[in-house]
Amino acid sequence: MTTQQLHEQILQKKSFLCVGLDPDLSKMPSHLLETEDPIFEFNKAIIDATHDLTVGYKPNTAFFEAYGIKGWMSLQKTINYINENYPEIFTIADAKRGDIGNTSSMYAKAFFEDLNFDSVTVAPYMGKDSVEPFLAFENKHTIMLALTSNEGAFDFQTLTTNGKELYKQVLETSKTWKNSENLMYVVGATKAEYFTEIRKIVPDSFLLVPGIGAQGGSLSEVCKYGMNDKVGLLVNSARAIIYASKGTDFAEKAREEALKVQQEMEEIIGLKFQV
Amino acid sequence: MTTQQLHEQILQKKSFLCVGLDPDLSKMPSHLLETEDPIFEFNKAIIDATHDLTVGYKPNTAFFEAYGIKGWMSLQKTINYINENYPEIFTIADAKRGDIGNTSSMYAKAFFEDLNFDSVTVAPYMGKDSVEPFLAFENKHTIMLALTSNEGAFDFQTLTTNGKELYKQVLETSKTWKNSENLMYVVGATKAEYFTEIRKIVPDSFLLVPGIGAQGGSLSEVCKYGMNDKVGLLVNSARAIIYASKGTDFAEKAREEALKVQQEMEEIIGLKFQV
Repeated sequence: MTTQQLHEQILQKKSFLCVGLDPDLSKMPSHLLETEDPIFEFNKAIIDATHDLTVGYKPNTAFFEAYGIKGWMSLQKTINYINENYPEIFTIADAKRGDIGNTSSMYAKAFFEDLNFDSVTVAPYMGKDSVEPFLAFENKHTIMLALTSNEGAFDFQTLTTNGKELYKQVLETSKTWKNSENLMYVVGATKAEYFTEIRKIVPDSFLLVPGIGAQGGSLSEVCKYGMNDKVGLLVNSARAIIYASKGTDFAEKAREEALKVQQEMEEIIGLKFQV
Repeated sequence: MTTQQLHEQILQKKSFLCVGLDPDLSKMPSHLLETEDPIFEFNKAIIDATHDLTVGYKPNTAFFEAYGIKGWMSLQKTINYINENYPEIFTIADAKRGDIGNTSSMYAKAFFEDLNFDSVTVAPYMGKDSVEPFLAFENKHTIMLALTSNEGAFDFQTLTTNGKELYKQVLETSKTWKNSENLMYVVGATKAEYFTEIRKIVPDSFLLVPGIGAQGGSLSEVCKYGMNDKVGLLVNSARAIIYASKGTDFAEKAREEALKVQQEMEEIIGLKFQV
């Protein structure tokens, strides 16, 4: 998928919501646990109930790997289900990978070829040759951590280096890498005041924004400082939507929560773009 | 496994070699490709041929994930095979994981509980709450990236912050985290001159050292500057050992290469510890 196609989908659905798929058996409705593949059944129900309100799904690989081979099978089925039934959806493997060049190439194959995701999240610590193998894939997107939504973000990401915070250096340096037009960045919603500075460095890039909802970030603040003239934001919400209910009505309640966010987004898009 | 048990194994085998398992179908002997699970058959043959010369095996998860569900099944079989047949071996899931707290907890479950590895590699960029969930597991070890063996290490890891390089800050900060005694660190062999400074910060920690062999690092230099009074090093070699031959003699040739490294290590241990 191209960023232009993603942008068009955003305007059409009046939404820049991405639903995080963090399937946790201990938080799922009990009636699903009796099925053969509860994780897939859970995801499928959430996807069917929300696909018209969201432009992306972001399966978090940890929540599949924790269940071993069965979990990886559920991941495969989930991405296949999205690609077959809702091919317009932008898919993100939230995997936070990154290693020396030949290893990153294998991770890129895993997520872009074997699983056929549109994008994957990566960590920047190992630098250029750990990220460029991902960038080599045409019409695939590499979403690099810049400033994350958690408390630990202040341990290293905001340390000053070369007269600026490390996350700014990460953004700047990454722009010099080969095929850097395939980069997007993770910027946490819990740090909305940083978006102005970030937009000075990467005015045109899509930003994937976690931290709305359970982690406490504000959508309006994020949009105020982070939106560009192509919207340029994918706002992720996971727990607040997918675990809105633990009953048999979980998919319905997930839709209600997604709809609330989509309506807020529609208002923001309407004000800014008069669509 | 405790670090004391690892230390005892090192003295007994007169080796601190760790063999990296990076199974790549395009580099394997062709006769294996006809078997049902070439990746597992390859790993099994390498393990059987080298287990008495090495104290650790380090499957690199990327090389399994690239083959999807089949790859993850090969990973499961590989770690089970080691644990059942060579329980004294220290096992490392080279996964470079790290995410917000509840996600890191799931990764820790995946590698420490579901797959039952002794240790896992993690990336530090997201800070304290992304690493502490791994540290909470007793007698399990979390091997954090400090200074890596690749060229991209110089993009961010060696930037100066607080008057010192970032990787030193990472080492220092990590010592303040809960259960930090369960930390080990990745330090690349290609940067042997840095070991003296690193040992000032983490004198007692085990260091996992990639970069010997294909990447060009020198074993004697690493030992000269990096060894402590408990050895404190796990030196990894992957390609130079596992791909020593592409013929039917691949396991035999892998043993020959492993033996060369082990003998060099035996000499170094003998000189330093008079064992």
